[in-house]
Amino acid sequence: MSLLSLLFGQKQKSAVVAKERLQLIIARERGSQGSPDFLPALQKELIEVISKYVNVDHDDIKVSLEKQGNFEVLEVNIVLPDGKSA
Amino acid sequence: MSLLSLLFGQKQKSAVVAKERLQLIIARERGSQGSPDFLPALQKELIEVISKYVNVDHDDIKVSLEKQGNFEVLEVNIVLPDGKSA
Repeated sequence: MSLLSLLFGQKQKSAVVAKERLQLIIARERGSQGSPDFLPALQKELIEVISKYVNVDHDDIKVSLEKQGNFEVLEVNIVLPDGKSA
Repeated sequence: MSLLSLLFGQKQKSAVVAKERLQLIIARERGSQGSPDFLPALQKELIEVISKYVNVDHDDIKVSLEKQGNFEVLEVNIVLPDGKSA
């Protein structure tokens, strides 16, 4: 199954009016225990870069972080209210 | 199923020596047909930001872009050779 169908799956078929949506996922597998935890700092910088391309307020951004052993997944969801566009 | 198991699934159980890996996924649903295509430019800038955190050569980076209707998914995979770390 392609990433596109994994992430958008059902939405591709629904006739709902498309909103401008951007999802950023950073998945990290740590090579060694000692390697620094840089995801929070990286996330902040990536959102700053995205804000240059998408007219975004902080309330439009939802962030979630999942950790398990050597694995971490940071998810940033940005939904632009109607009328606002990239 | 959580994003972490979706992205890392089987790898979490395998006893293979962990490599430092970073996967960046940018999924976009376009609100209106006219909105600009900024993923290629955004991808370039995001990789520049990541290079501040992870010691990465261009040959360590694999990029793939998938498009279907209003939906686009850009995937950047970075695998760090052994010995190199964040």
